[in-house]
Amino acid sequence: MPDVAVIGIGMLPFGRHPERTVVDMGTEATLLALQDAGLPPARVGAGFFANALAGRLFGDMTIGQNVFGEAGINRIPVINVENACTSGSTAFYLAYNAVAAGQVEVALAAGAEKMCVPGFGLINSGENELETKLGLVTPASFALRAMRHMAEFGTTPAQLAAVSVKNRRHARHNPMAQFREPVTVEDVLTAPMIADPLTRLMCCPIADGAAAAILCSTASARRMQRAVQVKAAVLCSGSYENPQDLVRWETDYRVCRLAYEKAGVDPADLDLVECHDAFSIAEILHYEALGLCLPGEGGRLAAEGETALGGRIPVNTSGGLLSRGHPVAATGLAQVCEVITQLRGEAGQRQVAKAKIGLAHCAGGDKDGDTKSSTVLIFAV
Amino acid sequence: MPDVAVIGIGMLPFGRHPERTVVDMGTEATLLALQDAGLPPARVGAGFFANALAGRLFGDMTIGQNVFGEAGINRIPVINVENACTSGSTAFYLAYNAVAAGQVEVALAAGAEKMCVPGFGLINSGENELETKLGLVTPASFALRAMRHMAEFGTTPAQLAAVSVKNRRHARHNPMAQFREPVTVEDVLTAPMIADPLTRLMCCPIADGAAAAILCSTASARRMQRAVQVKAAVLCSGSYENPQDLVRWETDYRVCRLAYEKAGVDPADLDLVECHDAFSIAEILHYEALGLCLPGEGGRLAAEGETALGGRIPVNTSGGLLSRGHPVAATGLAQVCEVITQLRGEAGQRQVAKAKIGLAHCAGGDKDGDTKSSTVLIFAV
Repeated sequence: MPDVAVIGIGMLPFGRHPERTVVDMGTEATLLALQDAGLPPARVGAGFFANALAGRLFGDMTIGQNVFGEAGINRIPVINVENACTSGSTAFYLAYNAVAAGQVEVALAAGAEKMCVPGFGLINSGENELETKLGLVTPASFALRAMRHMAEFGTTPAQLAAVSVKNRRHARHNPMAQFREPVTVEDVLTAPMIADPLTRLMCCPIADGAAAAILCSTASARRMQRAVQVKAAVLCSGSYENPQDLVRWETDYRVCRLAYEKAGVDPADLDLVECHDAFSIAEILHYEALGLCLPGEGGRLAAEGETALGGRIPVNTSGGLLSRGHPVAATGLAQVCEVITQLRGEAGQRQVAKAKIGLAHCAGGDKDGDTKSSTVLIFAV
Repeated sequence: MPDVAVIGIGMLPFGRHPERTVVDMGTEATLLALQDAGLPPARVGAGFFANALAGRLFGDMTIGQNVFGEAGINRIPVINVENACTSGSTAFYLAYNAVAAGQVEVALAAGAEKMCVPGFGLINSGENELETKLGLVTPASFALRAMRHMAEFGTTPAQLAAVSVKNRRHARHNPMAQFREPVTVEDVLTAPMIADPLTRLMCCPIADGAAAAILCSTASARRMQRAVQVKAAVLCSGSYENPQDLVRWETDYRVCRLAYEKAGVDPADLDLVECHDAFSIAEILHYEALGLCLPGEGGRLAAEGETALGGRIPVNTSGGLLSRGHPVAATGLAQVCEVITQLRGEAGQRQVAKAKIGLAHCAGGDKDGDTKSSTVLIFAV
């Protein structure tokens, strides 16, 4: 099987874009990625497009064909995918598989989402889910996890706030991030309460946005500057067997273990991580699943600055979902854009020195206490 | 690359199922396919789930995880896909690729759709499509094609009706079909006009339903009775370059050519075809793209009985979309179920004698005169 590299990335600044559509945002990200790769549209052999909400919000279908068609990419297999918050990373996973299997030389993954529209409220796993109907919307579910982590390990609201403060500090130097003004622990703790103990500044904002990546075989990429190797791309759905354990997603632990095995790296080898901080407690739980610290120590890790720029293992140098915003199906590919930018050494004032190995982690959906889909992508230069 | 076989199929009778959900229909089809394959859920290595409308109609997300979880399939990569009317065949295509690439030994493709709900009207390519807003809903688009075929080749309304009559006659012996009462050419021609020249009996009905298939490497399948080999699975998106030519979908011609090349077969080798007769004119156009006759001769082919059971090349022995009904994302997999049933020699009174090679064809979406996605699957025993 050929090794796979990322040779192009593109994304739009996330935020409120009332004048833009899913298609035109997706097209711009795709064109930016093609331009970054220095490839004409005709070189793309397969396209995977991620969107999670446009069917529900706008009645759209087969959006990927419109996006790629607008970008001048025709005649290839185009597949529209949805996997909740892992939609974008699922598109990447399929593009990786298509290249790794030798089915195409060049594959494209793009994701776009438009959420800042009247009538759209909380993100949830589907309006028909029994848990959603009973009130367990996503912030409530994460609030339960936070409460449990506090009870089990003594994690404090100030530690939860430290995640938000760190990610906002990182976002200051990321022009793609939606919120870039610094906040203090006190700002976070005194923000309006959404679901106790999670205040508004501990919950990621919705956003409009798009991101894309272009992958090819490493052999082809040797001719290209700035190629970054994909060491692992792993996707798992949930086991739905541990509803009693609110502080360990079994699927997250499993997908991390599989990805480390596949890439042949340890947590200690990582230079940076983008993880799915949909809520500040989520980042803490993901630290633990990723093996950045022992179970229960995630709050301390954030509060002591170990995951800040300059710390032992910087997490969410982009600002994460908490500051960059979370246009659902674009997020997984925005994480890819950040890791690639860092590994190319092009991250400017938020650059992690000598970054050689980076990881992007996503988790999506919620079912019986487990995630419905978790992905881990590991990259290296 | 390992060769791939279908070792299990399952589907529900299509029709109005007001008491059922997308999830429970998808689960039943999945369980039937597992039972047919004689495999426990734990043997499935990857799952691809197709749905096109549940986001729009019910606000659902990540349905595949719910469906497969209910069927006892957990911990594997699950991917939700949408490609309009080719959603089900796209799930099959991805499952095929996963096995062909050696990524998994056993893959599952399932599709389910619930459409018979208050407020759902015409199928279209998306409520935000400019063409839809301007009135070019799907029946209107196919009516233009029919008018053009009549003008260019002398095709008659009676020939269009012959397709509907034939498929209804086939459906009589298919317990999975929604409409099984015979109709005459006169019945079809005097049915209410939907979009001139297409009457209601020339348009496929909406339906609720689900279908599934289980694939594995041919090497593993050797141990199993009744395995059917997949000779080709090809998917193409449109070129959107021939809006003036309403009687030739460039993408359909291309996907057929690629599939025949890959499978190493000619149209003359086929024993039966399931094709995407969303409207009777569509079946005629697909005959021509598939090379079952010369361009322009499709109407005559149907009217002279060459595509009827007992004819030269039986098409839509299941009754097709026109009689079986068209629960969008289930259709592509229902076609697979029919071809596999025929190649196993288990089609009862609608059996094609000595059937060895069968083809399933889907076309989905509409953009600038081309299809947004076309798939061809070729099977052999």
